Amino acid sequence: MTIRRSRDVPALVGAAREGDARAVARLISLVEDGDEALPRIAAALAPHTGEAAVIGLTGSPGVGKSTTTNELVRAFRKAGRRVGVLAVDPSSPFTGGAILGDRVRMQDHATDPGVYIRSMSSRGHLGGLSAATPQAARVLEGAGCDPVVVETVGVGQAEVEIAGLADTTVVLLAPGMGDAIQAAKAGVLEIADIFVVNKADRDGADTTYRDIQGMIGLGERAPGQWRPRVVRCVASRGEGIDELVEAIEAHRAYLTDSGELTARRTRRAEAEIGAIALGALRARMQDLRSGTTLSTLAEEVAAGRSDPYAAAEALLAELR
Amino acid sequence: MTIRRSRDVPALVGAAREGDARAVARLISLVEDGDEALPRIAAALAPHTGEAAVIGLTGSPGVGKSTTTNELVRAFRKAGRRVGVLAVDPSSPFTGGAILGDRVRMQDHATDPGVYIRSMSSRGHLGGLSAATPQAARVLEGAGCDPVVVETVGVGQAEVEIAGLADTTVVLLAPGMGDAIQAAKAGVLEIADIFVVNKADRDGADTTYRDIQGMIGLGERAPGQWRPRVVRCVASRGEGIDELVEAIEAHRAYLTDSGELTARRTRRAEAEIGAIALGALRARMQDLRSGTTLSTLAEEVAAGRSDPYAAAEALLAELR
Repeated sequence: MTIRRSRDVPALVGAAREGDARAVARLISLVEDGDEALPRIAAALAPHTGEAAVIGLTGSPGVGKSTTTNELVRAFRKAGRRVGVLAVDPSSPFTGGAILGDRVRMQDHATDPGVYIRSMSSRGHLGGLSAATPQAARVLEGAGCDPVVVETVGVGQAEVEIAGLADTTVVLLAPGMGDAIQAAKAGVLEIADIFVVNKADRDGADTTYRDIQGMIGLGERAPGQWRPRVVRCVASRGEGIDELVEAIEAHRAYLTDSGELTARRTRRAEAEIGAIALGALRARMQDLRSGTTLSTLAEEVAAGRSDPYAAAEALLAELR
Repeated sequence: MTIRRSRDVPALVGAAREGDARAVARLISLVEDGDEALPRIAAALAPHTGEAAVIGLTGSPGVGKSTTTNELVRAFRKAGRRVGVLAVDPSSPFTGGAILGDRVRMQDHATDPGVYIRSMSSRGHLGGLSAATPQAARVLEGAGCDPVVVETVGVGQAEVEIAGLADTTVVLLAPGMGDAIQAAKAGVLEIADIFVVNKADRDGADTTYRDIQGMIGLGERAPGQWRPRVVRCVASRGEGIDELVEAIEAHRAYLTDSGELTARRTRRAEAEIGAIALGALRARMQDLRSGTTLSTLAEEVAAGRSDPYAAAEALLAELR
C-alpha cells in the first residue's frame, strides 16, 4: 500500500493504530481536506476513541503558546505518555495553509516517535474547524496519543468554538498584552478552566495575576463547581510547567468525579454534529452562489434597489 | 411617540434621518436584537444609503484601537463631517453585551451631537455579526454619518469577516506585540488596506515597520492595484493621525477611480445576504437542537456508538 495517497480506510486506520506516523499523517490530511472518505474514517475510529484527554491551549499572538506546548509535551513524555499536538490556525481563511513559522520551536521533539505534532488549517472542510479538529484529535487518539493538545492562535469566535471542544481549556496571558478588561472583552474568562500568566518574570505579571484572580472571584458558580486556577509560568525556562500539569490533572479529576466529563463530551458531540450539518447546508448554498442568483441579488442590494433581508428570502426560496 | 420602545419603523427612520440620537439608538438596538422589525428597517433605509465611507479598524487587544478611533473622530470632525462609530465585540458569545471598559476613552466626544458612538455585540442576531454590523452602519449613514468607523477587537475569523464589510480596512499593530510572522498567522496581511504601527515611539517600532513593509513587498499584485500603506502613529499624542486620514482618503480615491468600490460593495452584499440566509437556516436547526433529536444523537456519538457524520446525516434528514 502506498500510504501517501491511500484512501483505503480500514488499512489506514489499522496502520495508525499500530502507531504508523505516515498513516496518521495521511488520515489527518484526509480530514483536513474534507475528503469524501471522511465519514468512513469517522465510523472506523469511533469504537476505538473517546477516552483520551483533550487539552485546549489558547491565547493572543505572542503570549508564548508554542513554547508552553513544547514544555507540556516534555512533561507528559517524562511521564511516559504518547502525546499528540494539533496546532490549529483558525484565522487565515485565504492562505489555505497554516503558517509554520513558530513550529521550529518544537524541533526538540521532532525525532521522538512518542510525539506527533501537526499544524492544520480549516481550508475547505465541511463544517469548518469545529468539525475537522475533533476528527483529527480522534485520529491521534486512535494512534495511541493521550493527551491530545489542541493549540489555537488568536482570540475570537473560532477560538471560543475550539475551546468548547476541549475537556480542559488553558488560556495563556502575558503581562503587557493588555489588562484584564481586554481578556474579558475577548471572551476568554468564560472559557478558561486554567489561566497561565506566562512570562511571569516580566514587569506587570503581578498585576495581571491579581486582575485575573479578581475577575475569577467575581464569577458566580454553584457549590462544588470548578474554580479556574491561575498558574505563573516562564515557559521559556520551563518554570511553572509542573504546576500547570498538576492543575490540568486536578481539572481532569474534577471532570471525572463530577460527571461533567460525560456532559461536556455530549455537548461537544452536539456542536460537532451541528457544525457538520451546517457545513453541508453551507456547501449547498455555496453552489447557489456560483450561479447568477446571488450576484444578481447582491448588485440590487449594493445599488440600493433592494435590501439584504428581502434578498436572503429570495435566496432561501431558491434553496428549497 | 415613545421612541425608547417604538417599533414604528417609518417614524423611527424619519426621526433618525433628522439626526435624532434616540431614534438612532432605538434602531440600532432593534438591529442588534435581531428584532422582527429588522427586514422592514432594512427596506426603509435602503433608498437612503450606500454612499457613506465605511472604515474598518482592527487589531489585537492593547494596540490602541480606541485611542486611534478617538483621534480619527477628532480629525473628521475638524473637517466638518458627522461621524458614526460602531465598536463591535465579536468574541464574547456568552455575555450578551459588549463590555464598555475602554469606551470611557472616547468621552471627549460624548457631548458632540456630530458624533454617534455605539458599542454592539452579536447576541441573538439572525445572521450574526456580519449581518448586524452593516445594518447598524446603514442606520448611522441614514442619520447623516459619513464616515462610519467600525472598530473590532481581536484577531480571528470574525474580524476577517467584518474587515470584508468595510470599504477601507485599517489594521493596527504595536511594537512588542509579536513579530510580522504573528501578523501573517493572524491573517491580517490579506485584509489590510492600511497598516498603522501605533506606539511608534516605543522600542521595536522600526523593526515592526520594516517587517510589515517587507511582507507587503512580497505580496503579488496586478498593475494599478492598491499597495497597502504603512503609517506610524502615536495615537495617544495625536501624532500621525493626519497621515492616517490622508492614507484613508487616498484609498477611497483608488476605490472610486478603479471601480473597485462597486465591486467590493457587491461582494459585501453577497456576504450579507448569505449570512442572513445562513442565520435563518441556523435558527431552524437550533429549534431542532432543543428537541430530543440532537441530544440523543450526541449521546450516541460521545459514547462511541455512532460517529458525527452519520449523526449529521440523520439530523439533516430531520430538517427536510
